[in-house]
Amino acid sequence: MTPEEVIEGVRAGKRRAIGRAISMTEQPGADGRAVLAALHPHTGRAIRVGLTGPPGADKSTLTAALVRHLRAAGTTVAIVSVDPSSPFTDGAVLGDRIRLVDHFLDDGVFIRSMATRGHLGGLSEATGHAVEILDAAGFDVVIVETVGAGQNEVEVQALAETVVLVLIPGSGDAIQAIKAGVMEIPDVIVINKADRPGAGVLASEIDQALTLVPIDGWKPPVLLTQAIDGDGVVELWGAIIDHRAALAEGDALDARRRDGMRRRLRVLALERMARDLDAAIDDAALDALAARVVAREVDPSAAADTMTAATRKEADGE
Amino acid sequence: MTPEEVIEGVRAGKRRAIGRAISMTEQPGADGRAVLAALHPHTGRAIRVGLTGPPGADKSTLTAALVRHLRAAGTTVAIVSVDPSSPFTDGAVLGDRIRLVDHFLDDGVFIRSMATRGHLGGLSEATGHAVEILDAAGFDVVIVETVGAGQNEVEVQALAETVVLVLIPGSGDAIQAIKAGVMEIPDVIVINKADRPGAGVLASEIDQALTLVPIDGWKPPVLLTQAIDGDGVVELWGAIIDHRAALAEGDALDARRRDGMRRRLRVLALERMARDLDAAIDDAALDALAARVVAREVDPSAAADTMTAATRKEADGE
Repeated sequence: MTPEEVIEGVRAGKRRAIGRAISMTEQPGADGRAVLAALHPHTGRAIRVGLTGPPGADKSTLTAALVRHLRAAGTTVAIVSVDPSSPFTDGAVLGDRIRLVDHFLDDGVFIRSMATRGHLGGLSEATGHAVEILDAAGFDVVIVETVGAGQNEVEVQALAETVVLVLIPGSGDAIQAIKAGVMEIPDVIVINKADRPGAGVLASEIDQALTLVPIDGWKPPVLLTQAIDGDGVVELWGAIIDHRAALAEGDALDARRRDGMRRRLRVLALERMARDLDAAIDDAALDALAARVVAREVDPSAAADTMTAATRKEADGE
Repeated sequence: MTPEEVIEGVRAGKRRAIGRAISMTEQPGADGRAVLAALHPHTGRAIRVGLTGPPGADKSTLTAALVRHLRAAGTTVAIVSVDPSSPFTDGAVLGDRIRLVDHFLDDGVFIRSMATRGHLGGLSEATGHAVEILDAAGFDVVIVETVGAGQNEVEVQALAETVVLVLIPGSGDAIQAIKAGVMEIPDVIVINKADRPGAGVLASEIDQALTLVPIDGWKPPVLLTQAIDGDGVVELWGAIIDHRAALAEGDALDARRRDGMRRRLRVLALERMARDLDAAIDDAALDALAARVVAREVDPSAAADTMTAATRKEADGE
């Protein structure tokens, strides 16, 4: 497929073209850039939702429950998974557990996993591109599923307008991270597997943590779900829609998008620079340099200077 | 103090000079570079230990207990804290709780907190420099205390030869992260606050997690501590020393140092590039560019190209 065919296919919502477009933009090069440049004017329509939380919070089942809920209403959904512990990312969708098997033949659902693929570009970069492509392809909702509690490499805040933090009873780390100010405040907080002991304790810990941090405007609701049975999923989607409606008052949605784009552009530029660095200083060169520093023949700062100068030279010569 | 006086003072183990040296290397510039270049040949003697884990694992109390144990044996210790939730980092050392107040007048202990300071350079960069300076100053042991479960910006693996992961009962996230392969395997695992319910469950979860990941050579011991009473601290130090002895067999210690230095050099170079980027594209320029992308006048890739080209031009002109 030529870039032109891919662009046309994405605009027409064709699955093969969408998959090809994402693959093209995972690699650095002119084809991917042409695809992104042509599709970008058609973005901005989808509702972009980020689903994040520690590994084991069963975000996948919650995503699957959201998909069922949305499909029942005729809403189309695309999922970008960057959670290496997610069964989506394993490539092995575990039938009953995930229940997305229901949607295998459904053109209104598209699933793409990112984390285990070989990205020559950065993972954040590739994930952002995938979200743009799925938006341009006309999906009503794009869900980005990431692992981590705000410390992840893929900054979900930069890609999604509404960020949902998924926790389970017994996982206190994220709450500690909120208290410590090392984690950004999500827009919606979900306690999944709420039938487990400790759900009530966790909810009150969250309430306490939220009183310790400054919040202006939207106060994140704390919801209980049992994704495996679909319990609480209607309320979760309602909270996401409420958050979006709150953003849409005044200039907040646009401000959020500009803020996200600022972060995303910076990450894009840094990932490109990292790629230039790795092209300029290959493994052997880095090994040799590290050995010289450990042998105390050169200091780390001077070695880093050598690396950045070589990178600029290489990138300028491109 | 001139850079020469600072260098001389650090070599003589003078506290004021050490503090000044760390501050100098927190800022980009010729003075910091001169200090690092002069001190680097004198590094490599200290035992470098990383202490990491989720916020709330009470790493500070464990660090304090280690310090007491080491000081009782006449061993000198420096601590570099990059945990924003740590009381060390708050600047407010909480007397009884931390118990480092015992060492305020002790020249054999030096504490430096990094996370809340204004670093014009990157935090990883500044932390690495501080470790080098404290090593060159002659401290027997340098402890780096970082928050996070392996996903932190400050890569403790790059700075320490032995990495201790500190968990508490109820914190399952780190175990999930080990299982999912998103976290590097630590060298020693500590369950702190081991008197709390769930310590035994956590220990068996860890054992199970460790059977799921490939481990060759050193198998991380799992220890129970109650840092507040000093319980288990002798065993912890024993495990750290055992790990170091295992590394010292053959070429492993040197290989570990080279591996750490490879990571550190790459981070150093990337942090420098990030600084160049922020110098070339200030907030106003980034705002304007992000607004144009959100308005769909330019696509993100093209905007990132503009940013990297401007950065190279700026850095070359330096």
